[in-house]
Amino acid sequence: MTLLLKSFPARAKIWSEVFADAEEPFFADPSLVTDTKAVTALACWDLPEDLTVYPNLKLVLSVGAGVDHMRELPQHLMLCRSLAPGIETQVRDWVIMACLMAHRDIPSYLHQAKSDTWNSLKITANADRRIGVLGMGRIGTLVAQNLTALGFPVVGWSRSGRPVDGVKTYGAEGLPTVLAQSDILVCLLPLTPETKGILHARTFAALPKGAHLVHAGRGPHLNMDDLKAALDTEHLSSAILDVTNPEPLPKHHWGWSHPKLIVTPHVAAQTDAHEGAQHALNVVRALKLGEIPPGLVNQANGY
Amino acid sequence: MTLLLKSFPARAKIWSEVFADAEEPFFADPSLVTDTKAVTALACWDLPEDLTVYPNLKLVLSVGAGVDHMRELPQHLMLCRSLAPGIETQVRDWVIMACLMAHRDIPSYLHQAKSDTWNSLKITANADRRIGVLGMGRIGTLVAQNLTALGFPVVGWSRSGRPVDGVKTYGAEGLPTVLAQSDILVCLLPLTPETKGILHARTFAALPKGAHLVHAGRGPHLNMDDLKAALDTEHLSSAILDVTNPEPLPKHHWGWSHPKLIVTPHVAAQTDAHEGAQHALNVVRALKLGEIPPGLVNQANGY
Ligand SMILES: NC(=O)c1ccc[n+]([C@@H]2O[C@H](COP(=O)([O-])OP(=O)(O)OC[C@H]3O[C@@H](n4cnc5c(N)ncnc54)[C@H](OP(=O)(O)O)[C@@H]3O)[C@@H](O)[C@H]2O)c1
Ligand SMILES: NC(=O)c1ccc[n+]([C@@H]2O[C@H](COP(=O)([O-])OP(=O)(O)OC[C@H]3O[C@@H](n4cnc5c(N)ncnc54)[C@H](OP(=O)(O)O)[C@@H]3O)[C@@H](O)[C@H]2O)c1
Repeated sequence: MTLLLKSFPARAKIWSEVFADAEEPFFADPSLVTDTKAVTALACWDLPEDLTVYPNLKLVLSVGAGVDHMRELPQHLMLCRSLAPGIETQVRDWVIMACLMAHRDIPSYLHQAKSDTWNSLKITANADRRIGVLGMGRIGTLVAQNLTALGFPVVGWSRSGRPVDGVKTYGAEGLPTVLAQSDILVCLLPLTPETKGILHARTFAALPKGAHLVHAGRGPHLNMDDLKAALDTEHLSSAILDVTNPEPLPKHHWGWSHPKLIVTPHVAAQTDAHEGAQHALNVVRALKLGEIPPGLVNQANGY
Repeated sequence: MTLLLKSFPARAKIWSEVFADAEEPFFADPSLVTDTKAVTALACWDLPEDLTVYPNLKLVLSVGAGVDHMRELPQHLMLCRSLAPGIETQVRDWVIMACLMAHRDIPSYLHQAKSDTWNSLKITANADRRIGVLGMGRIGTLVAQNLTALGFPVVGWSRSGRPVDGVKTYGAEGLPTVLAQSDILVCLLPLTPETKGILHARTFAALPKGAHLVHAGRGPHLNMDDLKAALDTEHLSSAILDVTNPEPLPKHHWGWSHPKLIVTPHVAAQTDAHEGAQHALNVVRALKLGEIPPGLVNQANGY
């Protein structure tokens, strides 16, 4: 029962320490594996090509918050994604910041500054700025509850429509209802075959005129040409993106200089190696006890 | 016992309705005063030159959050400033937004975007980003408590050092202590002879290297040349200002284009006329009952 990490040396060093302290067996790199039969769990970002090397492998753990980059696994393998409280609060902070920036017209003020223009725009009351959150998982829930506490009317969308304290939620069928009341649309969905490309022309058209987009999901959720059209026709007022399509945004892409767009380079969160190692430890221990490992992915749903 | 409003027509219309509904006597403009002796309270931004016109005047009410623009009043007059929950939450939102923007390197990312550069900077944990709030009044307290809830270690500074739930506070003498632990310095002071120019070279020098400034007090708190020097020598990493010195920021001022500076044109809050009228009503009623009117200013202290 040993976890093998396939990652870069800085992460390997920290995980080695955490696993040594916990007296759990650990291989810090594929080249260090002395007994391939011992490997029952593999933590990595990029899957190795041949998993049959580890005949007793039971579980693959993504060292990031998503699993959308992983190819399909053989049926007998469990898949987990990293859970770290730090990631969740970091994305929460980025999204609250971006929502407040959209709400308080920062893209317009940055644009006005280019022509040395001091001109105040009318503040919309928080109670009159409705926010819709696509994806009411661990992060979406945190975001929705924090925005509610700031006085914004918030609605949430998920597959199940699972109830969330203090936030009105809608299930799969409720998307048009959610979009129609999203003056700011926040995307915090996982990337799956169902959600790929969900931010496209018809989605934008279903938003109230003048709406704003805040996107911290994954680049391929978004059709950037459709976004440009919606910004240029002024149907959308602004967009603040942490993820882009393609990613990284190439040199000379229109997104770098559009007056209604702000882009950050996929930095809403950065995994803390200690938190990641601690979670990996919890996964290994659950596996040993035959319990459900934390962060287990439903591979049929893709998240 | 009548309140006279000296302001612009849109505000006069709303106040007239609120006072009519409340059956409280009200003059919507100096030109409409039928009996100058009836006027016991005057609400205005710019004081009229001659107050002796109203021989029974007891109280002047500033229609804004501050009174720093008012000249000294005759000794027998009380001075109030407007209190509106909307102003407080608006400034809170602007300051939280600006702190998160500084915390998450938005000025750097905006600058990088100018050269189409996709480059991630290391996130500092909230627990490692200390925030100091100058001015722990109605707004500073709200801001400090909200930032604490987001996981930032916050200290506050006020004249009295009055204790505030959940935030360590220091009184007048504690300024150096507060500055030394302010990775982000937030200014929410009123403008008084004591606080004028408080954000100057020595104040910046007392901050930790790489600190950020978030300023939503008043323009004359700040020496902008000293700010430029602190940004240019990289002692300060960024500044986000809602108020400037001079204000408005003139065309061709360095502040419009400095890569480490973001300016909004004094829009952290805008008084809602209904809330202002409701507060004025509370002031008039307190005056009638001989109670302390809400928002009463200590004219010796200047706030
Ligand atoms: N920018 C960054 O740095 C960064 C960092 C971390 C995460 N992220 C993004 O944030 C996403 C969310 O993370 P999380 O931890 O909150 O994930 P999570 O806990 O797995 O939540 C996913 C949510 O999306 C909903 N969902 C999934 N497929 C759906 C569909 N087809 N239709 C409607 N709703 C659907 C789920 O609905 P149910 O509740 O009904 O299952 C759930 O509410 C990640 O997948 C990733 O894309 C970005
Ligand atoms: N940018 C905008 O749009 C906008 C909008 C509204 C307000 N503001 C600014 O925000 C300021 C604060 O508003 P507020 O309603 O919170 O005011 P407040 O309730 O009167 O609070 C003022 C605070 O400043 C402290 N203070 C005053 N003089 C001081 C001195 N010499 N040394 C140390 N501390 C001192 C006070 O200390 P004590 O607690 O000991 O009295 C108090 O904590 C306003 O005066 C205005 O400048 C800006």
